[in-house]
Amino acid sequence: MEAEIISVGTELLLGQIPNTNAQYLGEKLATLGIGLHHIITVGDNAGRLKLALEAAWQRADIIILTGGLGPTQDDITKETVADFLHLDLILDQSSLETIRCFFAKRGHHMTANNVKQALLPKGSVALPNPNGTAPGVWLEYDGKIIIILPGPPFELQPMWEHHVMPRLAKILGGKHTVIRSRIVKIYGIGESAAEERVKDLVTSSNPTLASYAKATEIQFRLTAKAETEEEADKLLCSLEEKLHARLGEYIFAYDEETMQEIVGQLLTKHNLTLAVAESCTGGLVSHWLTNIPGSSTYFQGGVVSYSNQLKEQLLQVPIEMLREHGAVSQEVAEAMATGIKRLAQVDLGAAVTGIAGPSGGTPEKPVGLVYIAVADQTGVYSRRYEWHGIREIIKQRAAQALLNLIRQRILQIDI
Amino acid sequence: MEAEIISVGTELLLGQIPNTNAQYLGEKLATLGIGLHHIITVGDNAGRLKLALEAAWQRADIIILTGGLGPTQDDITKETVADFLHLDLILDQSSLETIRCFFAKRGHHMTANNVKQALLPKGSVALPNPNGTAPGVWLEYDGKIIIILPGPPFELQPMWEHHVMPRLAKILGGKHTVIRSRIVKIYGIGESAAEERVKDLVTSSNPTLASYAKATEIQFRLTAKAETEEEADKLLCSLEEKLHARLGEYIFAYDEETMQEIVGQLLTKHNLTLAVAESCTGGLVSHWLTNIPGSSTYFQGGVVSYSNQLKEQLLQVPIEMLREHGAVSQEVAEAMATGIKRLAQVDLGAAVTGIAGPSGGTPEKPVGLVYIAVADQTGVYSRRYEWHGIREIIKQRAAQALLNLIRQRILQIDI
Repeated sequence: MEAEIISVGTELLLGQIPNTNAQYLGEKLATLGIGLHHIITVGDNAGRLKLALEAAWQRADIIILTGGLGPTQDDITKETVADFLHLDLILDQSSLETIRCFFAKRGHHMTANNVKQALLPKGSVALPNPNGTAPGVWLEYDGKIIIILPGPPFELQPMWEHHVMPRLAKILGGKHTVIRSRIVKIYGIGESAAEERVKDLVTSSNPTLASYAKATEIQFRLTAKAETEEEADKLLCSLEEKLHARLGEYIFAYDEETMQEIVGQLLTKHNLTLAVAESCTGGLVSHWLTNIPGSSTYFQGGVVSYSNQLKEQLLQVPIEMLREHGAVSQEVAEAMATGIKRLAQVDLGAAVTGIAGPSGGTPEKPVGLVYIAVADQTGVYSRRYEWHGIREIIKQRAAQALLNLIRQRILQIDI
Repeated sequence: MEAEIISVGTELLLGQIPNTNAQYLGEKLATLGIGLHHIITVGDNAGRLKLALEAAWQRADIIILTGGLGPTQDDITKETVADFLHLDLILDQSSLETIRCFFAKRGHHMTANNVKQALLPKGSVALPNPNGTAPGVWLEYDGKIIIILPGPPFELQPMWEHHVMPRLAKILGGKHTVIRSRIVKIYGIGESAAEERVKDLVTSSNPTLASYAKATEIQFRLTAKAETEEEADKLLCSLEEKLHARLGEYIFAYDEETMQEIVGQLLTKHNLTLAVAESCTGGLVSHWLTNIPGSSTYFQGGVVSYSNQLKEQLLQVPIEMLREHGAVSQEVAEAMATGIKRLAQVDLGAAVTGIAGPSGGTPEKPVGLVYIAVADQTGVYSRRYEWHGIREIIKQRAAQALLNLIRQRILQIDI
């Protein structure tokens, strides 16, 4: 089975929004083992959309169109598909009712142009859209499947998940190729050094192994193709074991998991509490930690001690220490960690101080110099880093390094 | 002039990375007034790339290819372009030297497969790449311009800026259509209400006005086409004046400016200092404020008082108040603002408390309920909000609301 994506929208050509729908659909099609060889973006122009449909019709079994389902004159996707296939547009009463309800619930009146959204090419199945007014379209015609989805990702994604994927899976039955993939996240080793350790695995064509360096971690993507999920998983599993043998000590998470989620899980497991004193990261560590639902059970809060006054006053970093070593020093990082641990009465106090730049660096203490520290019941542990990069990247790297040190300390407690 | 983008890379089809290059180039082409009607994504496959080149050759004057310039066997973009145009690949000595230097500087040896990166279709100009090993390609052939750019955005963008744009601008001369656009950011009014006020302006075809609702603000994009920059600016200016007359009280920033930048500018201008006490935003307000270089001059830091203990202990929120009204209440928000102002000895103390969800809500205090407060020399000012959305969106909305209240307080001081 071969699919083609046609993304419709002048705003995509003008670069006003990224084409996240094509990325989302590409990933989902790969999971189903459906081939995708072309993504075409055209504007809100019936002539060019028709030519794109003609080209796709020659190449693909499944044509997925996104965008152009709105109520305005600009929105021409369904109209153009109907015209291309010489089908009439039929008013779908049930969709019209749903649109009317959508407005009523919000205390608004449906305007006349919304009626257009309930018109579907004859023979279509309307795909419900609880998050917007435009229903999607599933149309089987002349041996092909045409799927039309609304542009906003928060409308498109649930529609794919609940209405398109089940239909496709049913059609594919058990006979299709399954593609499964897994992401293994590592921290604490450079990309080239990591690749060096697995270079013989990178050349394999099934399963495949590819690395991506992110600002705060390296990701390995493992992908396996097979006839069944079980076989694909077996291939993945064996590759993952090899990766573990070579890089196990650096692996901290899998797939969608983040460092802060892992830290949260470990804190919960060991019934430990945490507080954070942040200087150069300016609240980012706390922000990441509190993005996790339920983090209030282990995260007590913290201090963003951007000024020296707050370092002294709240964290009781001695003024002589600040004078002698400077705010960006191992001594101050450790004193901040001990200070926040005492202040918030927690099991782990974590701290970070550094120079995020772009100004404020000196030859001895350049931009990118960062000290992190964690105080627990066994003592205080600190590390020094020197990174390159813009302010936001240095903040992110410092936050990730601190979370990693917290993770490592909890794992030590575990032993 | 008409351009077409061909994005090359199987990772784009598999949805492993977003196609940010197409968005970037789309925006840049629009600025130059170069039309773009098609973006095609194909995998690392010579046959399909050749067909895409054939189609683009029929439609466009400028063909921009991105990706597939790496040292491996997979990377076939230059080879396929050369094959398509029946041109030999020639070793570019200067590019080879640059690649050698790139490795030497980093203490590495150049491997044999990197030589491939210095091969260019005959007649090409190599575009220097200080951020990677692959030079870009500028090739004028048979009345067309073929531009080949490396896939990594941090290599592609500087290459476009320094080497492609100047060449295109020169070719376009003074005779091309100029497209200028401007973003006007508003806060404090809903999208429909805002659109209602400007609906007669939205129908204009030059300049155009379009609105986008973001999670934390509404953006109006004004776009004007003209023969010269001056004329385009005049059109923009006149539209902006009308927008001001209708929505002036809600406008807080333009173009790339953020709410936190505006707050930073105002604090600097009035020589005021700020500290923040955050509960449900968990450090996000501080993080946003400290993303701005130089923010340490006015931002003293803050407290992330996730636990009630920290609210009492550091911010001196009375325990009876917490018991009587609960942590999420107007009283506590105001006490937190006063508390952080006193604690950090600043001119403005700002605070936020709320229920970010997904759990923790009750019928009286649902998920999405947020109180914000700002204490300054004239008193304490607070507001209540009730939002819908996921945890991260509620955090963002609360952070933006608090920054907006800080902005409004400083503007009051100004009067």
